[in-house]
Amino acid sequence: MKVVEVLHMNGGNGDVSYANNSLVQRKVILMTKPITEEAISDLYCSLLPETLCIADLGCSSGANTFLVVSELVKVVEKERKKHKLQSPEFYFRFNDLPGNDFNVIFQSLGEFEQDLRNQTGEELGPCFFSGVPGSFYTRLFPSKSLHFVHSSYSLMWLSQVPNLIEKNKGNIYMSSTSPPSVIKAYYKQYGKDFTNFLKYRSEELMKGGKMVLTFLGRENEDPSSKECCYIWELLSMALNELVVEGLIEEEKLDAFNIPQYTPSPAEVKYIVEKENSFTINRLEATRIHWNASNDHINGGYNVSRCMRAVAEPLLVSQFGPKLMDLVFQKYEKIVSYCMAKEKPEFINVTVSLTKKK
Amino acid sequence: MKVVEVLHMNGGNGDVSYANNSLVQRKVILMTKPITEEAISDLYCSLLPETLCIADLGCSSGANTFLVVSELVKVVEKERKKHKLQSPEFYFRFNDLPGNDFNVIFQSLGEFEQDLRNQTGEELGPCFFSGVPGSFYTRLFPSKSLHFVHSSYSLMWLSQVPNLIEKNKGNIYMSSTSPPSVIKAYYKQYGKDFTNFLKYRSEELMKGGKMVLTFLGRENEDPSSKECCYIWELLSMALNELVVEGLIEEEKLDAFNIPQYTPSPAEVKYIVEKENSFTINRLEATRIHWNASNDHINGGYNVSRCMRAVAEPLLVSQFGPKLMDLVFQKYEKIVSYCMAKEKPEFINVTVSLTKKK
Repeated sequence: MKVVEVLHMNGGNGDVSYANNSLVQRKVILMTKPITEEAISDLYCSLLPETLCIADLGCSSGANTFLVVSELVKVVEKERKKHKLQSPEFYFRFNDLPGNDFNVIFQSLGEFEQDLRNQTGEELGPCFFSGVPGSFYTRLFPSKSLHFVHSSYSLMWLSQVPNLIEKNKGNIYMSSTSPPSVIKAYYKQYGKDFTNFLKYRSEELMKGGKMVLTFLGRENEDPSSKECCYIWELLSMALNELVVEGLIEEEKLDAFNIPQYTPSPAEVKYIVEKENSFTINRLEATRIHWNASNDHINGGYNVSRCMRAVAEPLLVSQFGPKLMDLVFQKYEKIVSYCMAKEKPEFINVTVSLTKKK
Repeated sequence: MKVVEVLHMNGGNGDVSYANNSLVQRKVILMTKPITEEAISDLYCSLLPETLCIADLGCSSGANTFLVVSELVKVVEKERKKHKLQSPEFYFRFNDLPGNDFNVIFQSLGEFEQDLRNQTGEELGPCFFSGVPGSFYTRLFPSKSLHFVHSSYSLMWLSQVPNLIEKNKGNIYMSSTSPPSVIKAYYKQYGKDFTNFLKYRSEELMKGGKMVLTFLGRENEDPSSKECCYIWELLSMALNELVVEGLIEEEKLDAFNIPQYTPSPAEVKYIVEKENSFTINRLEATRIHWNASNDHINGGYNVSRCMRAVAEPLLVSQFGPKLMDLVFQKYEKIVSYCMAKEKPEFINVTVSLTKKK
């Protein structure tokens, strides 16, 4: 599986689209707003750029894409009014993998910008938008062309499935039953990917540039702990049921592993310091219930929908499109059962960084 | 009809897609290559930028989008080798209206870049690509952020259908039977649009920046002359047949006008000089047969396909999607009949410009 070609959130505006099933991601953007606000406000006040260049990495498509932009614009507008300055030019770059539905973003931009102007007032400077397809584990932007990088719920995705020397039998992710070599391979891939990410961004950011990165993580130092692996373990249970029913070949399932790693704050700190391009301003963990909706009756349905919007293209690449309804019906049942007994949460790690020189 | 929302070349890779029906446009890019080469080569040698920022306006989607990029890269690589310089960073911005199929471009970029590197050698500098949705009759890019602007077969499209005070009865474009007020309204809209285009681009280009613009035009000073209006007159004949057959309401046809103007070199010169941001380096007219293919037997079919790829979204917005097959079957017959008797040609006007200060 080539992650760069396969991974993307479900496109369009339909029932199983990411646009309509990304409430957790939306809430997390709002939860981490104070950190983002502090960073963009510090950045703007220290550099006062005529054109403020901002990239959102892993922007996906839908309301969340625009939520980030409007929050950032509002903070800058507040600051520049306080300092009695003219509104700058804003230059937003939306990045995601090439399979992302950029058409949907582009077709909503006109309306979004009009709404934004209605909210901020006519003094708002010109806003420019562009889409940048590609993996953030490669260079994406010209040298020293960015002031600010934002990324939410994207950096836990790896550039590839780790190279496993042993089979991760019965699992699709790290688990307490995974061989130690599997856990090690996952961590190795994460270390390599996150180091590359930092190196490439440090080339693209101007001096004093900042990044605020939020991703799925964990608090426990054990990478196979339940707090980060349970959500995939339940999906693995659904897939294993299909193996038992003879609908999926066992080898196909054994060969399938989710290209994701959810680091602890300590792991993030270690890699940032070792790579050495950035200073850490803040590093925090927060929690959010799997079901971010107020609708508690359909919790399992909501979680299953959210995970489908995120993981369906990966599953389709391995198992084909036909079984997807069935997989996620089973998954919904399993998730509902577990949520009736416990209150599972996602753990988010947010790190705010400044480029050193 | 809101042109910004409606106008776009047919998307995707299918039978009626622009990607598969744009041979004329491809040949014109190749015909005007010497002018483009001269301009990019002069620009590169005079500015020697570390990052060369290039915008293609009205990029559409398909092979033509990439043809422009690879031609420009090859010229710069030749020049920088001659001067024993390191290859610069290339930063390409693909612009088109929001209805353009950017997803198709983005999904082909990886393969395109690999091909390009195979052709140019491993010394080629990093290439960055972005998509910029929006009308080029508005600001699209931050101030002074571009070195070079290219646009081929796009600038004849107006920002809106001209405001007509009299009906353009029986026609869908300027014609010898159009009232003088219609011709005047078309020219007025063109003058306004092209002036805005020049003004906005002069804000976005750096000092010494250049543009090469090719568009459908005419040599005759009469804007209703056959050389530029015939292709639409034949489409109007096809639509009038459907009125006679009761499939299209006469009022609907009377209210439909193509938002296009094909200027003469003299008109272009007059507006560029009046707007005063640019010096004209070259201004030339060339000709290309309606059927750019070597396949002379299916000429009518090819021309009809090409026009369908270009004009279908406009027609659908006025007449709905159901009649399209029928319209273009009739059009093909009419075009074939006319091509059996005469050798109709498109006239292309190319202007090469340098920003004054």
